Amino acid sequence: MRVIGIDPGLRRTGWGVVDVTGSRMRHVANGVCQSSGDDLAARLLALHVGLTEVILRFAPDQAAVEQTFVNKDAAGTLKLGQARGIALLVPAQAGLRVAEYAPNAVKKVVVGVGHADKAQVEHMVRIQLPGVEIAGSDAADALAIALCHAHHAKFAGKLEAAVARAEAAR
Amino acid sequence: MRVIGIDPGLRRTGWGVVDVTGSRMRHVANGVCQSSGDDLAARLLALHVGLTEVILRFAPDQAAVEQTFVNKDAAGTLKLGQARGIALLVPAQAGLRVAEYAPNAVKKVVVGVGHADKAQVEHMVRIQLPGVEIAGSDAADALAIALCHAHHAKFAGKLEAAVARAEAAR
Repeated sequence: MRVIGIDPGLRRTGWGVVDVTGSRMRHVANGVCQSSGDDLAARLLALHVGLTEVILRFAPDQAAVEQTFVNKDAAGTLKLGQARGIALLVPAQAGLRVAEYAPNAVKKVVVGVGHADKAQVEHMVRIQLPGVEIAGSDAADALAIALCHAHHAKFAGKLEAAVARAEAAR
Repeated sequence: MRVIGIDPGLRRTGWGVVDVTGSRMRHVANGVCQSSGDDLAARLLALHVGLTEVILRFAPDQAAVEQTFVNKDAAGTLKLGQARGIALLVPAQAGLRVAEYAPNAVKKVVVGVGHADKAQVEHMVRIQLPGVEIAGSDAADALAIALCHAHHAKFAGKLEAAVARAEAAR
């Protein structure tokens, strides 16, 4: 299974792709799609083009997007919402189901505590994906989201398998 | 010149298309793209598909989107931002420039006062586009945005023409 994690932002949208085989996780790629300038529609288009290229190139099977922590001012929340709309749209256009995880859930899965700081998250991403080169903190967050989804999917898979075994044994 | 106006919303995104020839405005079409359900990415995809169909079908030359009035709670602002991201993206993908107008600016141009209510806006849209059948209040707002942009573009055109005449006369 190949998972893309996305950390949306209007200026910088981080992305990270991870392969999951059983309990093994392997880093595939990570990076940042950037947009700048005054023309909001053009910026959203640039994010859309960038993320679409990433998804076409790495062909993930599943996608996970950070559920935004609404702690900004209203104007900042609106900007983030607009970027987040694109981050959710692009994988949906590729036919992927898009999971959403709250930042604290991501930290809890990847670091073990819900209130880890950025440096801790990046450290644990490096430990779980040995040799990874990370294109900045937004890309590190995106890889953490992908890892979080991989762990969840693995658990969901085990649960399904256990249910299937239990049903078969009846 | 053919203008599409868009009033973004996650549940209902209104749209209205107007033809402008000199000072004449003619109604072309209006409607609402709807989305529902729990899957946010699927809802944004539905809005994207719906709006893309409208733009392919009516082939506007210019687009105008309502600049959101941020007076909601943070969760509502984020939802609106996500829908707005799609409303700005779709015309940009079609190569259109996307103008943005604040709700008060739209009302001021269409009704004459910045604090007109919905009924007044709809009334003035009906007067300016005789015989129009309107697909609900979101579509009426979208037509008002298109009319606002048409008036602005007309004024901008006159200004450009006057500047050109003045330069030619030197």
